Amino acid sequence: MGRNLLRVSLAQINSTVGDLKGNSQKILNFIEKARDQESDIVIFPELALTGYPPEDLLLKPQFLQENMETLRSLAGQVKGIAAVVGFVDVEDDIFNALAVISEGEIRGVYRKIFLPNYGVFDEYRYFQRGRETPVFLLNGCRIGMSICEDIWYPEGPHLNQAIGGESQILVNISASPFHVGKRELREKMLSTRAQECGAIVVYVNIVGGQDELVFDGGSLVFDEKGYLVVRAKVFQEDLVTVDLEPDRVLRSHLQDPRRRAKKLDYPSPPLVEISREGRHKSRKLKKRIEPVPVQEEEVFRALVLGTRDYVRKNGFEKVLVGLSGGIDSSLVACIAREALGEENVVGVIMPSQYNAPSSMEDAHTLARNLGIKTFTLPIQEIFHAYREVLKKEVFKGLKEDVTEENIQARIRGNLLMALSNKFGWLVLTTGNKSEMSCGYATLYGDMAGGFAVIKDVYKTEVYRVARFINNSKDKEIIPESIIKKPPSAELRPGQKDQDTLPPYEVLDAVLKAYVEKEYSFRELLGMGYEENIIRDVIRMVDRNEYKRRQSPPGIKISPRAFGKDRRLPITNLYSPFS
Amino acid sequence: MGRNLLRVSLAQINSTVGDLKGNSQKILNFIEKARDQESDIVIFPELALTGYPPEDLLLKPQFLQENMETLRSLAGQVKGIAAVVGFVDVEDDIFNALAVISEGEIRGVYRKIFLPNYGVFDEYRYFQRGRETPVFLLNGCRIGMSICEDIWYPEGPHLNQAIGGESQILVNISASPFHVGKRELREKMLSTRAQECGAIVVYVNIVGGQDELVFDGGSLVFDEKGYLVVRAKVFQEDLVTVDLEPDRVLRSHLQDPRRRAKKLDYPSPPLVEISREGRHKSRKLKKRIEPVPVQEEEVFRALVLGTRDYVRKNGFEKVLVGLSGGIDSSLVACIAREALGEENVVGVIMPSQYNAPSSMEDAHTLARNLGIKTFTLPIQEIFHAYREVLKKEVFKGLKEDVTEENIQARIRGNLLMALSNKFGWLVLTTGNKSEMSCGYATLYGDMAGGFAVIKDVYKTEVYRVARFINNSKDKEIIPESIIKKPPSAELRPGQKDQDTLPPYEVLDAVLKAYVEKEYSFRELLGMGYEENIIRDVIRMVDRNEYKRRQSPPGIKISPRAFGKDRRLPITNLYSPFS
Repeated sequence: MGRNLLRVSLAQINSTVGDLKGNSQKILNFIEKARDQESDIVIFPELALTGYPPEDLLLKPQFLQENMETLRSLAGQVKGIAAVVGFVDVEDDIFNALAVISEGEIRGVYRKIFLPNYGVFDEYRYFQRGRETPVFLLNGCRIGMSICEDIWYPEGPHLNQAIGGESQILVNISASPFHVGKRELREKMLSTRAQECGAIVVYVNIVGGQDELVFDGGSLVFDEKGYLVVRAKVFQEDLVTVDLEPDRVLRSHLQDPRRRAKKLDYPSPPLVEISREGRHKSRKLKKRIEPVPVQEEEVFRALVLGTRDYVRKNGFEKVLVGLSGGIDSSLVACIAREALGEENVVGVIMPSQYNAPSSMEDAHTLARNLGIKTFTLPIQEIFHAYREVLKKEVFKGLKEDVTEENIQARIRGNLLMALSNKFGWLVLTTGNKSEMSCGYATLYGDMAGGFAVIKDVYKTEVYRVARFINNSKDKEIIPESIIKKPPSAELRPGQKDQDTLPPYEVLDAVLKAYVEKEYSFRELLGMGYEENIIRDVIRMVDRNEYKRRQSPPGIKISPRAFGKDRRLPITNLYSPFS
Repeated sequence: MGRNLLRVSLAQINSTVGDLKGNSQKILNFIEKARDQESDIVIFPELALTGYPPEDLLLKPQFLQENMETLRSLAGQVKGIAAVVGFVDVEDDIFNALAVISEGEIRGVYRKIFLPNYGVFDEYRYFQRGRETPVFLLNGCRIGMSICEDIWYPEGPHLNQAIGGESQILVNISASPFHVGKRELREKMLSTRAQECGAIVVYVNIVGGQDELVFDGGSLVFDEKGYLVVRAKVFQEDLVTVDLEPDRVLRSHLQDPRRRAKKLDYPSPPLVEISREGRHKSRKLKKRIEPVPVQEEEVFRALVLGTRDYVRKNGFEKVLVGLSGGIDSSLVACIAREALGEENVVGVIMPSQYNAPSSMEDAHTLARNLGIKTFTLPIQEIFHAYREVLKKEVFKGLKEDVTEENIQARIRGNLLMALSNKFGWLVLTTGNKSEMSCGYATLYGDMAGGFAVIKDVYKTEVYRVARFINNSKDKEIIPESIIKKPPSAELRPGQKDQDTLPPYEVLDAVLKAYVEKEYSFRELLGMGYEENIIRDVIRMVDRNEYKRRQSPPGIKISPRAFGKDRRLPITNLYSPFS
């Protein structure tokens, strides 16, 4: 094989925030694997060493120092291959950086220049911007390197690295959080970058769940014409190794007159030598392009990964799910089973006088279908005890209302938490995004728990994902009766969600426009629904910020989730219908 | 009186976030009052029109537009006086800005240049930086204007305005959140600025509570030598009017050789004419320097203001406080009574078999001393009902542990929330910062409620503030027996806080060093306490991030509070004792 063939491994790992030792060990393991594949260089994601995002750990000098020491110790163990590792560079300030390591030494560093400070990102809170756009030399090949946000700007460092620095390869290491539609956007953008820079783009994304974020992996290589060459697996760790041909890039440059015309506008970047030697390759590699899932599967897998990592990284083994016989808790139970195995999911059935017997049967059927254990804890007696205490004096002569509904939901919350406290199992809550938006949930009741799996999934999406699950397995998992019956909280006789909320198709459309797209009142009216529905939805969303603020974290799957992504004040007298 | 006397009103108002109409009306009222005092110019705080901080309201185009329309309409109503109003300037981007208004028109705008993006601040998320440092001309006097963070930098716009632009007066409008020690820092810094710029500094701060923040007012004027001339009231609205003598400033400039030597280094800033006419002054004014409270009083007043504004701005009339006969709930009840009046505070006493009869007596005594109504709701029967359901199967044969303690706390939470739901009263929670740090509190139990009044007050400070209250009133408010007895959650027989936690003097010292100052493990050991105490405290703080994330908002009084101020991941495997 030719001298100018470069073998590159994309090490798409699942780091854990703060776990310097564990991450370092994982990085060394992947370096070993890549060396076994005779790679010249192995590339890890953004902040692979610290996990992403480390948030205010970055304000702890001890943590920063240990991150540097861990990197140096790791570098000392790298032999016979080059490695690119994301870490926090600490000098006169701190930088989101990558180190290029070869033969036991750190040969060079690149510091991220474009720092995201919007949506879920707060990088200006922590990092200083980098100033340099170095090009690294490996076995005669010129490689420009950048970090995540850098490559989303057309004028990012890659442009100077490619045109001024004649890089044949542009490496970008990322921690790019998943939302529906993000992968398509990202692939299109990277293809464009490859084409407009006339360089091979190697994009290595982190994978895994971290609190409210899921990173979907799906690392990529595009050739210098913008064609997809490699896609790693999505939603799981992967190591993909590919043979790149830098010579092809130079040939295409010579044939690109627009590119040559621009060249004098770009200064020559500093050059950093990694190594002059290529490694011997005993066999050729096949290129691997993993398929991408359809949207419902993508959401399901994001939720599974987010749940598994939240549970496992926080040291829990088992989880509890309150099963009501409704669609939300059924979906959450399915996700938990997929994430953790049937032996680690316990369903808790807590019937009251208002539950239809069919709901309890549905809950049992679901549990049987999933093969999970259940406990049954009836709540009538406890509810009775509350009523007795309250009606003696405080509520004497008052009519029942939503208060009594909430008491029941909070009894269930208390029971679930009692099991959690006694056995050390994590409670998964089951509220969906439609409910979280409207406050159609009881604080400390059905909102009580450690992780809100489907918090960012609208009710209409809940049904779509449920149907996907049933279709993708050989047998019915979620009983059809659960999917078909009208949704109800069953906290008073004959209650239905649609007594209180607009039809979910309408509600979800309005919510998406208001919560995610910040439509004005006038624009919302332009959607063609009744004005009083629009007004009700806006009022419900705005008034329930206080509830959302106390809800457990849950997995972001939309472009704008509740949480770090949408920071509205609780005390807020703004009304869009003035 | 001389031509060059400038009468300036500092309008220290309490805006409400989002309430464009209400804030605008309040601004017009204060303008009216300042005109009655024959002022030449009246100055409002940072973002007075929108309230501070508006957070993601700034991502709503409709809100931004209405803020512009409200400003224009307000400007049209300003006659016979100039006014400086903080607003969001919307042009090609959005800016944290001030408008200088005179005779019905906006004469000029200044846009904040230094945007804070640390601690509780996220201004890079929203605003573009300003580029210009204009100087405004009013009746021959040159006034440089800047916004909050700008003046905390020695090289801020004021320097160019003062030296390059020969401003005699430097106006800074602020929304500077309170914490203990901040006022002293701020006054020292502003005095330094006045002196080093050789200009009168007029500093107008906002006042009031907004979610977790309290703005303490205490607006200031320093003369060109750095001497304090005016201090407005702290923790309340105020309008202070002062006569300034710009001629004195020029005289002092001529005598300052170092200042004259620097002058050529600073470009001439753009000049904006506000008005050539001074107003007739019929009488001379006395200067007013309000006193400042001692630290315990300062904390008490911050908590009172923060509580009042959270309750009132969110539309509540009454609040509920669970009274245990302990020091925390007693302090919270005192704060609530001071904030809202005795008729708006309801104490709820919820005895169990583990409560000492003396605790219940203490709670009643406190309520009598405060003149607040109480309800008594015993929890034994309900607790019994839970135990019956659980021991039937799930907990059969298992020993009692912290689970049963939490069940009791959550029964109390459920009862308080039931009253809240039935009557529309807000529940105040009573946990202190020592508990919040260590997770020594029950999620959905004693942590259940709308507002956590003393969340940022360490236990040792709780005692100090309690003693201050008793000393400052003619009679004993908090019974001495409450202050004297050892703290206990009373959730099992004979329980004491110190069975589980280190002595509070030690705990609080370690917490302050770890939580607020980010001491490393080694530095904490250097404090001289036992190593196992240090380890336990660190572990407790780190492990309970998930609880704090679901706690209600509470008032920041320390340099680093839990909440926006300290953003640590929940999923976090970093351990400082590796």
